[in-house]
Amino acid sequence: MDRIPILRMGDVLLVTIQVDLHDQVAMQLQNDLTCEIQRLGAKGVLIDISALEMVDSFIGRLIADTSSMSRVLDAQTVVVGMRPAVAITLVELGVAMPGVRTALNVEKGMALLAASRLED
Amino acid sequence: MDRIPILRMGDVLLVTIQVDLHDQVAMQLQNDLTCEIQRLGAKGVLIDISALEMVDSFIGRLIADTSSMSRVLDAQTVVVGMRPAVAITLVELGVAMPGVRTALNVEKGMALLAASRLED
Repeated sequence: MDRIPILRMGDVLLVTIQVDLHDQVAMQLQNDLTCEIQRLGAKGVLIDISALEMVDSFIGRLIADTSSMSRVLDAQTVVVGMRPAVAITLVELGVAMPGVRTALNVEKGMALLAASRLED
Repeated sequence: MDRIPILRMGDVLLVTIQVDLHDQVAMQLQNDLTCEIQRLGAKGVLIDISALEMVDSFIGRLIADTSSMSRVLDAQTVVVGMRPAVAITLVELGVAMPGVRTALNVEKGMALLAASRLED
């Protein structure tokens, strides 16, 4: 398995990260995701990390970067399903992920994206 | 990573299979999924296999069994994102997955679940 599937739900793209992300998978994901945002005109991206039991600074930066890429393509990113231990680790690592919004689960993330679109 | 995350969207549960399923992960998934259906009163299950480039009879049977388990818990299962090569292999293996409904992607699968609920 060399790529992470990107699921489309309306104008939101859902990415579920389940595997350990090494460099090549991560770059492939960023490439696929930006292409899909552009191709489908997606307005939101949900990244589910509920399967991740721990993160390192590489993954933290990856998520922050992916979020920034989506933003310049006019899509908002919400990270969902973060475990408490992961939140602790991210802050301890100094990867605060500025500008990345979070929600407890996919449903709340979808609601957040819908609400922020109404504000626009 | 020893378990596959189950995402809740309304009364539908979404499972994205990305990793090679060996026995223990598969049993864990069936256990988690049946527990979640019961806990949340879910009415539908979407199993996304777009990341699977090939399947064997084990995975075919697993999907068919999972679908049957959901059915007796009053939840319908739709398998989405099957690649053409996977469809060919499944039939050649003689794993026809009776009673499992399929849709091209998550969106169409959600629509199928919504439509079948209206019929009830």
